[in-house]
Amino acid sequence: MGTETKIQRVASFETHPDRYRHWKLSCAGPVATLTLDIDESKGLRPDDYVLKLNSYDLGVDIELQDAIDRIRFEHPEVRSVVVTSGQPRIFSAGANIKMLASSTHGFKVNFCKYTNETRCHIEDATANAGQVYLAALNGTASGGGYELALACDAIYLVDDGSSAASLPEVPLLGVLPGTGGLTRLVDKRKVRRDVADVFCTKAEGFRARDAVKYRIVDGAFARSKWDEGIAGVAATAAKKHPTKSDRGIAWSPLQVETSEDGLTRTYSSVSLTVDAAARTATLTVRGPDAPPPADAASFHDQGAKAWWWRVWREVEDALLHLRFNHDTIGVVLLRTAGDSDAVLAWDALLLANRGTWIADEALAYAGRVLRRVDNTARSLFALIDAGSCFAGTLFELTLAADRSYMLEDDDAGVTVRVTEASAGLYPMSTGGSRLAVRYAGEPATVGKVLGVGEPIDASTANDLGLVTLAPDSIDWDDEVRIAIEERASISPDALTGMEQNLRFVGAENCDTKIFGRLSAWQNWIFQRPNAVGDQGALTLYGHPERPRFDWRRT
Amino acid sequence: MGTETKIQRVASFETHPDRYRHWKLSCAGPVATLTLDIDESKGLRPDDYVLKLNSYDLGVDIELQDAIDRIRFEHPEVRSVVVTSGQPRIFSAGANIKMLASSTHGFKVNFCKYTNETRCHIEDATANAGQVYLAALNGTASGGGYELALACDAIYLVDDGSSAASLPEVPLLGVLPGTGGLTRLVDKRKVRRDVADVFCTKAEGFRARDAVKYRIVDGAFARSKWDEGIAGVAATAAKKHPTKSDRGIAWSPLQVETSEDGLTRTYSSVSLTVDAAARTATLTVRGPDAPPPADAASFHDQGAKAWWWRVWREVEDALLHLRFNHDTIGVVLLRTAGDSDAVLAWDALLLANRGTWIADEALAYAGRVLRRVDNTARSLFALIDAGSCFAGTLFELTLAADRSYMLEDDDAGVTVRVTEASAGLYPMSTGGSRLAVRYAGEPATVGKVLGVGEPIDASTANDLGLVTLAPDSIDWDDEVRIAIEERASISPDALTGMEQNLRFVGAENCDTKIFGRLSAWQNWIFQRPNAVGDQGALTLYGHPERPRFDWRRT
Repeated sequence: MGTETKIQRVASFETHPDRYRHWKLSCAGPVATLTLDIDESKGLRPDDYVLKLNSYDLGVDIELQDAIDRIRFEHPEVRSVVVTSGQPRIFSAGANIKMLASSTHGFKVNFCKYTNETRCHIEDATANAGQVYLAALNGTASGGGYELALACDAIYLVDDGSSAASLPEVPLLGVLPGTGGLTRLVDKRKVRRDVADVFCTKAEGFRARDAVKYRIVDGAFARSKWDEGIAGVAATAAKKHPTKSDRGIAWSPLQVETSEDGLTRTYSSVSLTVDAAARTATLTVRGPDAPPPADAASFHDQGAKAWWWRVWREVEDALLHLRFNHDTIGVVLLRTAGDSDAVLAWDALLLANRGTWIADEALAYAGRVLRRVDNTARSLFALIDAGSCFAGTLFELTLAADRSYMLEDDDAGVTVRVTEASAGLYPMSTGGSRLAVRYAGEPATVGKVLGVGEPIDASTANDLGLVTLAPDSIDWDDEVRIAIEERASISPDALTGMEQNLRFVGAENCDTKIFGRLSAWQNWIFQRPNAVGDQGALTLYGHPERPRFDWRRT
Repeated sequence: MGTETKIQRVASFETHPDRYRHWKLSCAGPVATLTLDIDESKGLRPDDYVLKLNSYDLGVDIELQDAIDRIRFEHPEVRSVVVTSGQPRIFSAGANIKMLASSTHGFKVNFCKYTNETRCHIEDATANAGQVYLAALNGTASGGGYELALACDAIYLVDDGSSAASLPEVPLLGVLPGTGGLTRLVDKRKVRRDVADVFCTKAEGFRARDAVKYRIVDGAFARSKWDEGIAGVAATAAKKHPTKSDRGIAWSPLQVETSEDGLTRTYSSVSLTVDAAARTATLTVRGPDAPPPADAASFHDQGAKAWWWRVWREVEDALLHLRFNHDTIGVVLLRTAGDSDAVLAWDALLLANRGTWIADEALAYAGRVLRRVDNTARSLFALIDAGSCFAGTLFELTLAADRSYMLEDDDAGVTVRVTEASAGLYPMSTGGSRLAVRYAGEPATVGKVLGVGEPIDASTANDLGLVTLAPDSIDWDDEVRIAIEERASISPDALTGMEQNLRFVGAENCDTKIFGRLSAWQNWIFQRPNAVGDQGALTLYGHPERPRFDWRRT
C-alpha cells in the first residue's frame, strides 16, 4: 500500500465568513454569490500538499458547509446562489489528489462522506428552503469540481473553446468520482448511460458544445456574455420560490468545553464522552432547560440561542468530531436526560407554527441532523432508562439506532412518547419515516403506535415492537453491558457493512445510492492496489511513472 | 493478507442429475424435492478443504443451478419444490469457510455473484414459472444455508430445541452474509431492522420459537410432525399456480469445442474468442440457421435443440467461462452475425404465442441471460457492422452494453431493428426496460424509437441516440481500435465500480441492492485485513487463535 500519512485531528468544524480562507460569500438581496478562490498554501496539512488549481481539502469543505448554513439560516431572503470561481480559467479541480493519496483509508472515506453530505445540503436548501443553487463554471470543472456543480439545480459553462466539465477519476486516478458524480449524472440529470460512460472515461471531458448537447450542463455563455448571462439566470432563478422571511437568525458559535484529555466534549445541551478502552462513546442529549417561547415570533427572536437550534447543532458537531477524531470508537450509546413534557412542548410550538419560516427551518434542520445520524458508521444503541426524555422528536433517536434498550421499571416511571413527529416529519434519505421503515413488515402497527397518545412503558413498548429489548432492573446492567461488550468485539468493517445494509430498508433513491452503492464501491477501490498500491494510479498521479495494474477484473 | 490459493479453472458449468455429487432431485407429480447431501470429500479443491456440515463450494452451486433449470424446463408439471437436507441435524452451514479463506479475492467475488444469481433464479422460478420453492430446514441452517432458505418463497424450521437459523458471518468471520442475506431479511421478509441487527450479530441464531416470532421463518413443526407438516405445505403450495404444461423439454448438453490454447470456445450459435494480450474478448452471437418452427407446438417439439434455447444457453455459458476462467479480460466486444429478418421471425413466433408455456419460458430465459449480461463486471462494447443482426431481441445486447459503435456505411446496409422486444419484454433487475433506462432523460423518445418500425441506419440511429457513436467506414477501424485500447488501459477496479453505478439507473429494489449495495460492501470487506489479513477473522476461523482487529471504523 502507498504511504499513509495520519491526518491530524480536525480541530473544529465551525468557521465564519470573516475567517474563510478559500471562499467569498456575498449576499446582494435575493442573489448570493459564493466564490471559490482557494489559498493554495492554506490546506489543513500544508507540508504535505498544495491546493493548486482551486482543488480542495476538508478545510475548504468546512467553509462551504458553513456558507450553505449561513445563506440558509442567516439570509432567508436569498433565493438563488451563484457558485463560481475567483481564479482565471479554472472553476475547481476537485479534491486535491496529493491530499487523498497521503490520507489514511479511514480519512478518505470520512472525507468523502462529509463532502457528500454537504452536497446533499445544497440540494436540500434548493428543495426545502427555495434557495436555488446555480453552478457558474467560468473555467474548467473537473472531478469534484464538476460534482459540486452536479449538486446545484442548474449548471452553466463558459463557452471559450477550452473550459470543460470532466470526471477524470476513472482514467487518471483509478478511483471513482467520490462525491456523487456517477449517480447524479445518470439518476439526477438522466444523462444517457453510454454517454455517461464516454464522459467518465474521457479525462479531458466535454467542452461547452458537447456538454450542452448531452445535458452535462444546462447552458453555456461566451466569455463576453458571461457576466450578463449568469446574472440573468440568477435573477430568473431568484423568482422561482417566494421569500418566506426577510430576516434570519445569527448562526452564532457553539458553546463547547473539551476536557484536557480530549475525551469529553460538553456543549450547552449535549455531551459526548468517549471511553477509549471500551471503544464506546456516550452521546447525551439534554431536554429543554426552559419552556419554549410563546410563539413563532419569540422563537425567531431567540435566534440560534434557542434550545432547539443548540441541541441539533450540537448533536451534529458531536457526530462530526466522533467520526473524524475518534475513529476507534465502535459503539455510540444514545441517551437523553430531561423532561418529556418539555420536549413535547417544543414539538407543539413548531407543529403549531408550520408554514412559518422559522418553524419549518427548525424542523428541516433537525431532519438533516437525524439523517447524519443514519449515515454515521458506528453502531448506535439507544439506552432508555430513568430520567430520559425520548419523546416526540427525540424518540426519533431510538428509531435511528440499530438497537434500543428500555428499562422495565415502573417505579422509575420510564416511558417513551410517540407522536406525529414520527409520522414523516423527519424523512430518512429514502424518503419514508423511520417508524414506517421499522414496521415495513406490519404497516398497520404504525397507526396503532401513533394512536397511543399517552406515555408508553417498557412492557408495552416491547409488545408493540417499539424497542429491541426491555430488561428489568435486575437484568438491565448485565444485559446492556454484555450487549455493548459483544458489539465492541466484532470486526468494525463487518459492522459498518452490516449496518449500511440493514438501516436503509425499501427502495433506493439518488441519495441512498450515493451513500450506499457508490460509496461502497469507492471504499473497495480505495483499498485496492490498483489505486493505492505503490504502483497504483492514485499513488503515482503527478509522478513521471505510469501506474501498473493487476488486470484481474472482479 | 492471508494465503491466497489460486483456484483452478472451472472446467464446466454443466452437469446432470445422474452425475450430481451433492444434491438429489426427485420429482413426484406436482412436488419436487431437492435434497442437499454434500459429499464432503468431493469439493472442487479437495486437497484444500473438506465440505463439512453440508457446506458448499462452487461445484455444489453448479449442481443447484442445474437442478433449478431442470425442474423449470424439464418438469413444468412441478408446482412446488421442497429444498431440504439429507444429513442429520444440519441443513447447511453455508459456503465453506476454508474454501473462501483460501480463494483469491476475484474468485470470492465471482463465486458470490454466481450464487446470488442462482438464488435470484429460484425467486424467478417462483414468480414467473409458478414453481413455489419451500425451504424445509430439518436441521440448523447457518450463513449461506439460511440465505438459500431466504431465496425460497417460505421457510419452515424443525422445532427440536436445538436446530436454528443463523447468519454468523459478522460475529464469527468478520464478513457479511454474501448471498443476499441482509437485504432479503429486511427488504424481502421485512424483519424489523433492530431484530435483524440482533439476529445478524448472534452467532448461534434463533431457534424455532423466536424464528417464527420474528418472521425469520414462516413456520415450524416438531420433529415427530415434520414429514407430515412439510408434505402438507408442499401440497398446498403446489395448488397455488395452475400447471401450464405437463411436458417439458430435455435440457440436453451444450455443443462446444474449445481450442487447444483454451482461448476460443465455439458453440453451435455463439463463439467466445479471447485475445489475452489485448485483454479483450469477442462474444459473437449468430442469428438463426433455419427459419423458426411454424408454431408453438413445433417449437416445443424441437426442445432445447431449437436455435432460441441454444443461443441463450450458449451466451450464458460463455459469460460464466469468461468470468471465472479469463479474469484479465477487461473488454468484451458484443457482435452478431446473421439475418435480421430471421431473428425477427423468431421474435414473431414467440410473441404470437405468448401465454403458451414454451413461448413464455423461452422469453423469460432470454431475459434472465440478459440480466446476467448486465451483471457481468467487464466493459461491454457492442459493435454493429456489416453482416450483423442486432434486431428485436438481439438489439437488447446493444442496450445492455456500456457503449455501442455502429458503422455508417450505406453500401454495406448496416441497420438495427428496434421492436416491441425492447418495450419491456426483458426487464432489467430494476424492473424497467433497457430502452426506458436509456431514455430516462427523454422518455418521449422511447415511443418514437419503438414507432420507427423499419430498419434504422447508422445516421438515424445516432440522431435518435440509439447508439453511442456512428463512425463512417474511413474512421471505423481506428475509432473502434482506439476506444478498445483506451478502455483496456484503465484500472479494472475503477471500471467495475463505474459500470456498476452507471448501468442501473433508477430506483433500486431487492435484487439490485444485493448486486449493488450489499455486494460492494462485501467486496470491500473481502479486501480488509480484519477479514483476510494474517490475523483476520476469516483467515483464523477454525484456528485456536482469536482474530486481532484494527479497530478504526470507517
